[in-house]
Amino acid sequence: MNKVGIVGYGITPFTRDDQKIESVLLKSAKVLFENNSDIDRAMIDAVLVSTNNNSKYLSPILSEMTGIKPKIAHSIESLCNSGTNSIVSAYSYIASGLADMVLVSGAERYDSPGQILQWDNSRGEFKHPIFWASIFAKSYKQKYSISDEQLSLVSVKNHKHAKENPNALSNKTYSVQDVMNSKKLTDDLKLLDCSRPCTGGASIVLASEEIARKITSKPTWITGIGQKTTSAGFTKNLSLSSMESTKLSGQTALKMAGKTVKNIDVAEIHDAFSVCEPMALESLGFSKNGEGMKIITEMNSTDNYKINPRGGLIGCGHPLGATGIAQTIEITQQLQSDAGKRQVDGAQVGLIHNMSAAATSSTVLILEK
Amino acid sequence: MNKVGIVGYGITPFTRDDQKIESVLLKSAKVLFENNSDIDRAMIDAVLVSTNNNSKYLSPILSEMTGIKPKIAHSIESLCNSGTNSIVSAYSYIASGLADMVLVSGAERYDSPGQILQWDNSRGEFKHPIFWASIFAKSYKQKYSISDEQLSLVSVKNHKHAKENPNALSNKTYSVQDVMNSKKLTDDLKLLDCSRPCTGGASIVLASEEIARKITSKPTWITGIGQKTTSAGFTKNLSLSSMESTKLSGQTALKMAGKTVKNIDVAEIHDAFSVCEPMALESLGFSKNGEGMKIITEMNSTDNYKINPRGGLIGCGHPLGATGIAQTIEITQQLQSDAGKRQVDGAQVGLIHNMSAAATSSTVLILEK
Repeated sequence: MNKVGIVGYGITPFTRDDQKIESVLLKSAKVLFENNSDIDRAMIDAVLVSTNNNSKYLSPILSEMTGIKPKIAHSIESLCNSGTNSIVSAYSYIASGLADMVLVSGAERYDSPGQILQWDNSRGEFKHPIFWASIFAKSYKQKYSISDEQLSLVSVKNHKHAKENPNALSNKTYSVQDVMNSKKLTDDLKLLDCSRPCTGGASIVLASEEIARKITSKPTWITGIGQKTTSAGFTKNLSLSSMESTKLSGQTALKMAGKTVKNIDVAEIHDAFSVCEPMALESLGFSKNGEGMKIITEMNSTDNYKINPRGGLIGCGHPLGATGIAQTIEITQQLQSDAGKRQVDGAQVGLIHNMSAAATSSTVLILEK
Repeated sequence: MNKVGIVGYGITPFTRDDQKIESVLLKSAKVLFENNSDIDRAMIDAVLVSTNNNSKYLSPILSEMTGIKPKIAHSIESLCNSGTNSIVSAYSYIASGLADMVLVSGAERYDSPGQILQWDNSRGEFKHPIFWASIFAKSYKQKYSISDEQLSLVSVKNHKHAKENPNALSNKTYSVQDVMNSKKLTDDLKLLDCSRPCTGGASIVLASEEIARKITSKPTWITGIGQKTTSAGFTKNLSLSSMESTKLSGQTALKMAGKTVKNIDVAEIHDAFSVCEPMALESLGFSKNGEGMKIITEMNSTDNYKINPRGGLIGCGHPLGATGIAQTIEITQQLQSDAGKRQVDGAQVGLIHNMSAAATSSTVLILEK
């Protein structure tokens, strides 16, 4: 199989701005081309747009606006892990030989229609993600005797990390007490336990090994891919305190890369809600079941950026279609030693975990220098 | 590169029914599995949904409803050629080794939001496809001295073909005079010159060569793929009487298959409006410029089904996300000698032409026995 590398990226600040989706899309692509003058737009032969926005034909629109005439052009949607689905699709276009260089652009508005769970709702179940997140939180806390105070450390840590990320929606730090005192949304979740919808865009260019080595002296390589969809509806989940699709995706991705979780120097974890972070860490094998909070507590007390260095979804905001791409950009920056104050020293191998709808679907990517 | 074959299909009648998109999706997939008992759902490792519908997470929903737990699951949108974009994506997942067996399901409702050209509309241009089609028709007729009566033969022929297709929206035949007397929509197009929006679904399963040979004694192979997007907006088209993206896609697909247009025994052409059929035939090289109507006139007078045997979009209706897949099913049936009264004798090589938005984007596929 042809090797596939990331050769450039562009990202813009995540905000609550009321911008047209076409503008959001264009902005991160513009930053990408401004920052990577060696990328010749005429060589880009596929443009994939990752979004939950209802607008149609966005890939040809982005292509026209950026002066690209691609062979392959379409949008990809899979709720919150649309971004990594698009990256995997770009990988397959290159690995199959159908394309040599692919622009993947994710964009979302703060009022994305992807925030409503139509499928669960249509069957009289839970309309908003906070319902599944609350059930996860209740189940997880009971099973492993975790207190609300302990769980709030996820938000404390990720807001602290986001403070060092100029593109994050949040630039404030919070104490455990701040999280505990924030607005109670359900019995088990408070406002600061939740990632917030926002407007944001993120773009990357992937290329075949031959082209990647010509364009950049420091490509990062996608060496592991794992994906799994176990169901669409939350109530089909086998467990309420672990993530089956995440576990399977992690195993597949690590196996493909020839790594174990011990080799991972830095990881982006899909903390849509605070409880998701320890659950995902456990399902990925970073700790035993019930011990994910130990990692988070230690990271927080030692100012270690290994888990969610950019601030996670809780700190950065969650523009659905852009999130998986923004996570991938963070790991790329980490592997290139370009992550500024968030830098994890000597990071060689990174992991990205991106999921949808109560972990009914997950993607895990392994990136290497 | 691994060889990729089509190993099963399912299609349901195209109607004007008010059905939920999830039902439309499920129906053609159900037909597929009923008609192909050798396809083991547990072996399907990717599910791609082709649609312009605004509902989210449709691939996991279809997967849950059909009992599939895929690795790869997402929706693909590119207006009217979403279907062939999805087939090409499935091809790349298999050829790259990321998947062995992919279900591609297209579905649309009669009221699809993909029928409005938001991008052109947002810049004060043409809201509905009939505006570009009228400009194409005026330009084409003037340039090549084609009369309205001559052009109406496209609709006459395709309705005649659709009469033999049990899944077509239309089951009536029309004379030249009927087309001429149908409601005048613009100076250059009448009602029967237009394909009609409808509700419809179509599904296929693609597989790697190894699996394809195990499952079916008569797989069809995708041997040529060509795609091109020249712009998003109609006014960026270089010519108003030919289709640049179609020409380039056709050349690429034929070259990949090692064929010329003379080798094509049967073809599905994207006749969203009558004028599109001769223009596409010319851009694909079936005739010289301005002579596409000669082919159509001859086909019609000799009851030859070579061009648009299933009745084209004009006869079958145009459920956007399902159209490219329905076209591919027709060519598959033709190559397998399963096309009933529509059968083109001895068909060995078939071509599919599927496009979007005034041919600003085109896909061409070559299929072989």
